[in-house]
Amino acid sequence: MTPLGGEPASAELERLGTQCLATATEWIAYGESGEARAVPWPSVDAFRASMDVRLPEQGVDESSLLEKMRAILYNSVNPWTDRFLEKLYSAPAVVSILGDMLLGVMNASVHVFSASPILTMIEEQCAAAICERVGYGPQADGITMPGGAASNTLGVQVALLQKFGGVYRRGGIYALMKAYREHHGRVERGAHPAILTSTNAHFSIARAAVAAGLGTDAVVHIRTDEHGRMNVRELERMCAEMQADPAHPQGVPLIVCATSGTTVLGAFDDVAAIAEVCRKYDLWLHVDASWGGAAAFLPHEAPERSVLAGLENAHSITINPHKLLGVTHQCSFLLVHDKSVLIPPSHSDGGYLFHAPAEDALDMATKTLGCGRRGDALKFYLVWLRYGTQGLGEHIAQGLRMAQALWQRLQRIPSLELGPHADPLFLQICVRPREQSVRALHAQLRAHGQFAVDYAPLDDGQEYLRLVVHPRTPWHVYEQLLAHLGEGRSY
Amino acid sequence: MTPLGGEPASAELERLGTQCLATATEWIAYGESGEARAVPWPSVDAFRASMDVRLPEQGVDESSLLEKMRAILYNSVNPWTDRFLEKLYSAPAVVSILGDMLLGVMNASVHVFSASPILTMIEEQCAAAICERVGYGPQADGITMPGGAASNTLGVQVALLQKFGGVYRRGGIYALMKAYREHHGRVERGAHPAILTSTNAHFSIARAAVAAGLGTDAVVHIRTDEHGRMNVRELERMCAEMQADPAHPQGVPLIVCATSGTTVLGAFDDVAAIAEVCRKYDLWLHVDASWGGAAAFLPHEAPERSVLAGLENAHSITINPHKLLGVTHQCSFLLVHDKSVLIPPSHSDGGYLFHAPAEDALDMATKTLGCGRRGDALKFYLVWLRYGTQGLGEHIAQGLRMAQALWQRLQRIPSLELGPHADPLFLQICVRPREQSVRALHAQLRAHGQFAVDYAPLDDGQEYLRLVVHPRTPWHVYEQLLAHLGEGRSY
Repeated sequence: MTPLGGEPASAELERLGTQCLATATEWIAYGESGEARAVPWPSVDAFRASMDVRLPEQGVDESSLLEKMRAILYNSVNPWTDRFLEKLYSAPAVVSILGDMLLGVMNASVHVFSASPILTMIEEQCAAAICERVGYGPQADGITMPGGAASNTLGVQVALLQKFGGVYRRGGIYALMKAYREHHGRVERGAHPAILTSTNAHFSIARAAVAAGLGTDAVVHIRTDEHGRMNVRELERMCAEMQADPAHPQGVPLIVCATSGTTVLGAFDDVAAIAEVCRKYDLWLHVDASWGGAAAFLPHEAPERSVLAGLENAHSITINPHKLLGVTHQCSFLLVHDKSVLIPPSHSDGGYLFHAPAEDALDMATKTLGCGRRGDALKFYLVWLRYGTQGLGEHIAQGLRMAQALWQRLQRIPSLELGPHADPLFLQICVRPREQSVRALHAQLRAHGQFAVDYAPLDDGQEYLRLVVHPRTPWHVYEQLLAHLGEGRSY
Repeated sequence: MTPLGGEPASAELERLGTQCLATATEWIAYGESGEARAVPWPSVDAFRASMDVRLPEQGVDESSLLEKMRAILYNSVNPWTDRFLEKLYSAPAVVSILGDMLLGVMNASVHVFSASPILTMIEEQCAAAICERVGYGPQADGITMPGGAASNTLGVQVALLQKFGGVYRRGGIYALMKAYREHHGRVERGAHPAILTSTNAHFSIARAAVAAGLGTDAVVHIRTDEHGRMNVRELERMCAEMQADPAHPQGVPLIVCATSGTTVLGAFDDVAAIAEVCRKYDLWLHVDASWGGAAAFLPHEAPERSVLAGLENAHSITINPHKLLGVTHQCSFLLVHDKSVLIPPSHSDGGYLFHAPAEDALDMATKTLGCGRRGDALKFYLVWLRYGTQGLGEHIAQGLRMAQALWQRLQRIPSLELGPHADPLFLQICVRPREQSVRALHAQLRAHGQFAVDYAPLDDGQEYLRLVVHPRTPWHVYEQLLAHLGEGRSY
């Protein structure tokens, strides 16, 4: 009998699972109690020195194992304090945690239908339902990817495959160069496909260009206005200039990547206007709505939903339910306007695995450039089931109301200077102390541990604290934060 | 109060978590009972018609939610039957399921140290300990990736970045073409970097070539011997030929991808001999040990470990603890021989996020082409802690003993023909009925539902059932399988 298969797993899960669940519940309650720090460590070096994570030659007993789980929790960021405002995610919905446990219990790979029939159906259903929320028609499709950067990268790869087809699939960028040379008689400059995006786009767009073999030079950054939105006039001017000159040093425009909800300001590019430009110049429009796409759950008639106007014109969209919609890490979707653009099944490259007729498209991994896949859609499915479209919409609306209220209050604090902001305001507020450096204030907050807030440089050359409003955070937490910042206390 | 933040999460998790855990435990016990089918559905259409996974406008109540969770489990592949032998994974270790739950409770992204200090340390520690197992020195490093295909793809991208540096990072494959033209005066043929791998390599290598913009033509397939191993003499001949001719139609050799444990046969390429070829021709050696890398947990003196001889000479290695080591999906590592080759921090492309000095390399996402990351290493850490290096080694050894025993028994069944096999035998056995088509037998097995076994085409042009030995499967399951197959019963 192998060590991993000794006791029946049902008995083991019942015993250890109950204890582990109790420890987890206690840690969450500790976070909720108000006593816990948001971040567990004042100094990296001290933290590293205090933790023992060595791996043993012989296995440990159950009480040591449970003790270690407890130590891991109590030395982690505690999002249940509601004071971890450092990132674009926070404490998740409880049902999503249960989804993580169920995925572990099933341990299925959602790569072929036969290995995960209901998880495949759930992924299809979630993709179809999100497609409907963003205004896509019945031809649309989508799949989960392990994070927004992965979705953005696949968006770029899908655009290349769609534009250049089998030539690109077989010959890669080398074949594009060759075709260009045959057409234009030279390759000196300009032959490479370019991605146009704003200076406020997420850095994963540039990394996607590296990943796809285009390189960072293939990314053309378009300036933003004072509210962080891409300057569409400049985009159009650049597209015209690049297309008019086949030897333009910045290449041939292929993809425009707009952002719905930028990382620091929460700005929404004018997707409707950008889509016009893309139609005119025959460009692929990808929208990185990792953060802001959740606004699609607002009622269609809600004025706040207008930030997404035109989103249905995108060829591909990234949306991350693990950010604003209470799903645990990771859960990202790449949506496409037409299901035929997802990587077509190619049975020749997985004959041992893919047996279904190509037209059934049963096997999710045929839609990707990967193979095995975790069933992340289950977590979103459970959250959606529990709260409904309406509950998720109300969740976002509540966040927007709190952001407005926080903005009003911050304006009245004389020691603080508000920075550039999205218009309309989304869920981030950039602010800096007038009489202290941002880094000094950040270091004080970190050392104190009550609040975790990140800082970022902005286009005006200044650094700002970025306050993130998480919809599920109770308002009294922001009152506490206001008190901290308003009194300019040193910790 | 937003819908997602109503009741305190600790109370909600205690109540719902307890019920969900009970349902999961019951489903596992059902699998263990011998009554359950391994796969829940005889026909795709009937299954699809019977399942309701629609998403509601209004949220559902808790009992409906729990009922749905139950329905999902009871309509899923049940690995706890120990009769799901269809894929290269099976029922996981229970502590890994707890790891999934804890990751959900923490909901941290392991992209920067400040958001996940102990999870970062655990990932570093697991990577270092696996590096030690494969024979790497202290300069080695590793990171988790969402699956083996993702690790293989990053391996290819790292090789390109390492070989061509900033020129490639900035200019992509276009810049390589340009440099080649400047050197050789032409780009007609041969300028593209090539990946040499065996015909039995996983299809994710070809997909990695597409993902990286090289295209499938950049993959040169080297024939295998009758036991599924890459023909090293042919590899060397091809490298010599390609390097001698700068206009070779198959390109310039850059990467050799060896496989330790192929998908169908479980064959191990002779990595030591391949490493010699790579040294001679200055090529990057990537080893896809997604499946077979687990043999590194055998004691160093165990003769069975010799299949990995020379692995320490690889520049990069993929290993998937979610396959043979009892970790739940997903948990894959990309290891590199020298930590400096992981994507170097580039603060310019994430100034809002990465604040630590570059030399500290604190932030795991700086080592990837992505951003947010799930803390998958925690699950492996818990499994390793519970069973120790020794327990994991004994787990693999037990699997190998059972595979030998199964092989011996299958040989004695006159109605079956054994197919090509790895030498030494690993954990897969290919077998076909003499008087029936493989697909007919496969369809009968599927309809009966007792056993799930996949089939695959082999180099001899025949299809075979691929029996997978999972180390934690009790031997009596294989006795049952032998009885089924031996009696040639029709279901």
